[in-house]
Amino acid sequence: MKSGDGLYSYSNNSYLQRGVMNAAKQIVSEAIVENLDILKFSSSTTVRVADLGCSIGPNTFFAVQNILEAIELKCQNQGLDSQIPEFQVFFNDHTSNDFNTLFSSLPPNRRYHAAGVPGSFYSRLFPNRSLHIVHSSFAIQWLSRVPKKVVDRSSHAWNKGRIYYPSAADEVVEAYSAQCAEDMARFLQARAQEIADGGLMILIFAARPDEIPHSQLVANIMHDMLGCCLMDMAKKGIVSEEKVDMFNLPLYHMSDKELEAAVERNGCFSIERMESLPPISSTLQSLVSTRHKAQAISFHVRAAMEDLIKAHFGEEILDQLFDSYSKKLEQEYSLFESAGTSALNLCAVLKRKTMNC
Amino acid sequence: MKSGDGLYSYSNNSYLQRGVMNAAKQIVSEAIVENLDILKFSSSTTVRVADLGCSIGPNTFFAVQNILEAIELKCQNQGLDSQIPEFQVFFNDHTSNDFNTLFSSLPPNRRYHAAGVPGSFYSRLFPNRSLHIVHSSFAIQWLSRVPKKVVDRSSHAWNKGRIYYPSAADEVVEAYSAQCAEDMARFLQARAQEIADGGLMILIFAARPDEIPHSQLVANIMHDMLGCCLMDMAKKGIVSEEKVDMFNLPLYHMSDKELEAAVERNGCFSIERMESLPPISSTLQSLVSTRHKAQAISFHVRAAMEDLIKAHFGEEILDQLFDSYSKKLEQEYSLFESAGTSALNLCAVLKRKTMNC
Repeated sequence: MKSGDGLYSYSNNSYLQRGVMNAAKQIVSEAIVENLDILKFSSSTTVRVADLGCSIGPNTFFAVQNILEAIELKCQNQGLDSQIPEFQVFFNDHTSNDFNTLFSSLPPNRRYHAAGVPGSFYSRLFPNRSLHIVHSSFAIQWLSRVPKKVVDRSSHAWNKGRIYYPSAADEVVEAYSAQCAEDMARFLQARAQEIADGGLMILIFAARPDEIPHSQLVANIMHDMLGCCLMDMAKKGIVSEEKVDMFNLPLYHMSDKELEAAVERNGCFSIERMESLPPISSTLQSLVSTRHKAQAISFHVRAAMEDLIKAHFGEEILDQLFDSYSKKLEQEYSLFESAGTSALNLCAVLKRKTMNC
Repeated sequence: MKSGDGLYSYSNNSYLQRGVMNAAKQIVSEAIVENLDILKFSSSTTVRVADLGCSIGPNTFFAVQNILEAIELKCQNQGLDSQIPEFQVFFNDHTSNDFNTLFSSLPPNRRYHAAGVPGSFYSRLFPNRSLHIVHSSFAIQWLSRVPKKVVDRSSHAWNKGRIYYPSAADEVVEAYSAQCAEDMARFLQARAQEIADGGLMILIFAARPDEIPHSQLVANIMHDMLGCCLMDMAKKGIVSEEKVDMFNLPLYHMSDKELEAAVERNGCFSIERMESLPPISSTLQSLVSTRHKAQAISFHVRAAMEDLIKAHFGEEILDQLFDSYSKKLEQEYSLFESAGTSALNLCAVLKRKTMNC
């Protein structure tokens, strides 16, 4: 994510997610009140919460605040008013995340002890059974890496002329899907060790409805268009085509069924809820012109992708790339409107089973 | 502390502390093996360690590694080989500390879960009874703030023409001493709540032997000289004298007796050990010329003070100030050599008593 607080920063361009998070608020709150086994934790005077893939705020602070209020409500409902626990909140993201910005914007009147945890959530981050609630919002669509095959010229899954899988050959899609399955297995295994019995994991992510082809998902159309812009630049000789061939986005939008299968294979969690949230595009409705909508999406994608693109192609192509991207989005905005109904943001609530596994 | 890894950065100029820390290694290790009540924690499978005022490494990583090895040795000594605990290590410093640099330089093969905790150690940072070992090296000499009286023109303790207390009027020294007592009370109260019964606190700091006047302590001479250089610049009209009057260092070197009194007033800790470490100047002995020694001290002080001075006087005075400081140190180096015996680095080992307080 783009650090700092400039024009293209994540902190100034994460309002699309925020719209969905506002909608998630009620669901998360209800899930905690109904599903958290607070009595199981009563021997611990501290409730530990982690937000995985927190980026730099402010969305993570809103999400955390909502979770803590729900836990307090749960305590009151159970007659534990006098035993409102202390909270310790762990903000996790990659080591390259801008933790300095995150820390300097922590809410000054917070009622929790804050800590930052650097590292990939596809590996262990916390001690055994030490967490009570794990939250992750719009983060698990990031794979741990680009599938090796798609940048291997000798492989059938070589993704020549594209930077993403949705409109690519089946072999490419399969390579991405396999990488996601491997990553989710590692993610769930790590969390199964870290979450205490009866603890909850709340995952908010842009999913693909099982019956919708990859190429028709709004989130995928958005990123495919970015690939087209890069290929246009290659055709004009601004970047080398070879460089585009070697660049792929480490993103995959799994379906609800793929998540269910991963949870079942892992065996340590039950799925308590799986609820739909409004599509990200609904947040755009307040913007009047197509141009503004296109620009909002372009800024949103730039905040998330700029560092990746810069590392591979160099900083000098950024402005031109995102200018042409913004224009392309505006010209083809009807594609989004017709695909709008295919969008599916999900809030999945998983509970750690009381068993060793 | 100066962030990043440039010429004047803390990470490249913290080797003076490291010399003392190497000497502390054995003492810390012994203190843990002899004094940590590891059996009291056996219900917890995680041992939690905090380094307060960690700055950006690498010293904090060496200190932590030493602590963990000592705990493992202790477990082996107690026949708990099969129960070597998991470790969670909290790296604490001010919110303005460069946690990004700290996180990116975490040892890749560490056998602990790492977290960063932003905030002043003069307030609560962790949940109740959640820590087993607290370590702090060369950090508690930093006061929570400059005593108000010393920058108040209407006060008898107004510290005109100086930036520090050692050679100032008694009222100034008393204001600094009172601020230290207030800060230590808050420090010990916070830690008494955070440290589990039987847990240890290891404090390494440059102390003043009770019988040595403030003005004869090496660390104080060092900072007084910086004040002289600033006053020289004021006399030359490079900075305003008024600005120097309003600038004071938030530093105080307490004596061993002052620490003992603070611990007694707090009542929740017993002092298990209080051992002398070699003076920082011993690290300088490997440098041949006085010029190199003076430059090493100047770099050391600049790494610690640059941000403070920049915030008050502006960046433009830094090079000139530290050039003249380096020359002054060289000219008056004999002062250090004669005061060398007054230096007293202490390693105090405090144990949390098993009682509510």
